[in-house]
Amino acid sequence: MKNFVFQNPTKLLFGRGAIERMRAEIPADKKLMVTFGGGSVRANGVYERVTRALEGLDYVEFWGIEPNPKVETVREAVAMCRREGVEFLLAVGGGSVLDATKLIAAAVHAGADAWELVRNPALLPEAILPFADVMTLPATGSEMNNGAVISNAATREKFAFYSRFPLFSVLDPEVTYSLPEYQIACGLADTFVHTVEQYLTVAGESPLMDRWAEGLLSTLVEVAPGAMAAEPDYDSRATYMLCATMALNGFIAMGVSQDWATHRIGHEITALHGVTHAQTLAVVLPAVMAELQEQKQDKLLQYAARVWGLCEGSRQERIDAAIARTGEFFRSLGLKTRLSELGIGRPTAEEIVRRFAERGTRLGEKANVDAAAVGRILERCL
Amino acid sequence: MKNFVFQNPTKLLFGRGAIERMRAEIPADKKLMVTFGGGSVRANGVYERVTRALEGLDYVEFWGIEPNPKVETVREAVAMCRREGVEFLLAVGGGSVLDATKLIAAAVHAGADAWELVRNPALLPEAILPFADVMTLPATGSEMNNGAVISNAATREKFAFYSRFPLFSVLDPEVTYSLPEYQIACGLADTFVHTVEQYLTVAGESPLMDRWAEGLLSTLVEVAPGAMAAEPDYDSRATYMLCATMALNGFIAMGVSQDWATHRIGHEITALHGVTHAQTLAVVLPAVMAELQEQKQDKLLQYAARVWGLCEGSRQERIDAAIARTGEFFRSLGLKTRLSELGIGRPTAEEIVRRFAERGTRLGEKANVDAAAVGRILERCL
Repeated sequence: MKNFVFQNPTKLLFGRGAIERMRAEIPADKKLMVTFGGGSVRANGVYERVTRALEGLDYVEFWGIEPNPKVETVREAVAMCRREGVEFLLAVGGGSVLDATKLIAAAVHAGADAWELVRNPALLPEAILPFADVMTLPATGSEMNNGAVISNAATREKFAFYSRFPLFSVLDPEVTYSLPEYQIACGLADTFVHTVEQYLTVAGESPLMDRWAEGLLSTLVEVAPGAMAAEPDYDSRATYMLCATMALNGFIAMGVSQDWATHRIGHEITALHGVTHAQTLAVVLPAVMAELQEQKQDKLLQYAARVWGLCEGSRQERIDAAIARTGEFFRSLGLKTRLSELGIGRPTAEEIVRRFAERGTRLGEKANVDAAAVGRILERCL
Repeated sequence: MKNFVFQNPTKLLFGRGAIERMRAEIPADKKLMVTFGGGSVRANGVYERVTRALEGLDYVEFWGIEPNPKVETVREAVAMCRREGVEFLLAVGGGSVLDATKLIAAAVHAGADAWELVRNPALLPEAILPFADVMTLPATGSEMNNGAVISNAATREKFAFYSRFPLFSVLDPEVTYSLPEYQIACGLADTFVHTVEQYLTVAGESPLMDRWAEGLLSTLVEVAPGAMAAEPDYDSRATYMLCATMALNGFIAMGVSQDWATHRIGHEITALHGVTHAQTLAVVLPAVMAELQEQKQDKLLQYAARVWGLCEGSRQERIDAAIARTGEFFRSLGLKTRLSELGIGRPTAEEIVRRFAERGTRLGEKANVDAAAVGRILERCL
């Protein structure tokens, strides 16, 4: 087991009626800004519930944070915060709204532009606005971590950014009832891949963390049909929501290596083509598994046995079957597993390889996935 | 899934050399008290390491916190804190030292006596001293929760008490190298039963929490021989230490029912006979499982299958086998599973039943374990 430091101070308010219980957590004497996405919360009743919960508090609303949130939008919100003297932020929406809000919170009192904060963590100010969220789309895990992913429309780049944890997160599974099936599919896939990134690395580092990661993966596979059902089932949605939060809050990352190659490659596909984040992961993960199967073989065999019950056959057969089952799981959610199905071809793969070569980035738990390896991975995705 | 609120702010410093890294976490301008047990930390080098890490800070030492810490000892420490103007507490020892320290922290600025705080949570003051710990005996999970168990020598009572979380906890698996085998056995058993109390209740409440609890139980069974080995193995000790912390920090308790009947009955045995806490649990747990097997049957069958691989035979056979395997696990650790083996007979059982009848307490996840049921459970333990 590797040495580690762990701390996660976020308070979770989970369950039916959680929105109505959040008022006690909000500082009553502070000027608030409530941040929103494109407006789906108006249609599904969340806006009304939140507004009622905030009655009597002094707040402004900021609308229009897009999926794969852009630094350009963050800059607008920062200007509004400064103009209005905002002291506390409440994000109401999915991971994108919350991610943008994390950067807004950091940029309001910063001496640098928001994109500079993303590119250079040393520029983060001491004074960061406290923030919280009502999470409406379980997927990114942003509701219980200090990370965010921000895009730059001008440069067509997308990078991770780390700052503070939400003060609290409101998780009411019923707010997911109005989600389109495709968004739930993406949420399940995103959660699955978050878990794999922290699990499918070096065997034997932590038996407990392995079991917890496998518990997440098995639960996701079991709950997926129920969570995707047209007639919403509370317990399935609650389990899906809990998994999304637990997959990326550090709880399964103690003392173990992490990979994240799939995410880094997926981000480039989104940056270049605007493909939904989780859809890129569903394409890239099986290819990463296949390309790195020698290095990851012990963990792949453990994954095969414990998540998919694949205990028969040669090592190679079990590894092949586990990779196939992974792809089939994504397809069972209605997601694509080939770049060609997304209308993306070799020129994009070559541009991504060029970018990694230029940056000199080496990905994965052994930092040995260089631009050439990324090229081989993308070749498998075509 | 039940609604829940979760928050756990404790920072973990885990791994080799963690004691040497804790200095940055201690407020340099505060008067400290370092609390200790009976002196084993002098023999195993922990005292020296801690003292070196505190060099230059202003601190006093308080020695002599006993196993099953007594409120009488807490009162002495509180008096010393007041005399010395102590502002921050650092517990160095096992769960008992830390539990006592939690009550010391709460009592220093309280208007009530320490025992009154244990018996009446409404008397807890707002001003509670911040505290942290160097955990030397993984078992109670106290290093990452807000609970403590305090005994009263005068009344021969033992009760749980809830206050604040440690600011940080220092977990260096190497400090366990000097532990006697019996203490490791007790730590493993305690951790196992903590998990079972949050797991073996109502089936189907949370598939993820079930998997995580089963992950803890399976890991404990797997790691026990390695953790008990005379020649200490770092990774086994680290896994044992991590399990102890993760079993009672709320991570496996989200949205699920909890039992705690085994603990409540065990506490009475300790209060009356001074038997080590975990040893009482090893006696009581199999009897609780047997007595409540009808109510808990679905969960017992799941436990049988997933933790012990018992999938053949009738329902009754699998339940019987799972209960037997539980007892065998405790015996494999060198613990007793009968009251008679501890020299305890029917008069003690009758006194415990009398106490529960007098208090009118009803235990368990359905609050249906009354004094008569406690009597039947203890009858099975004789």
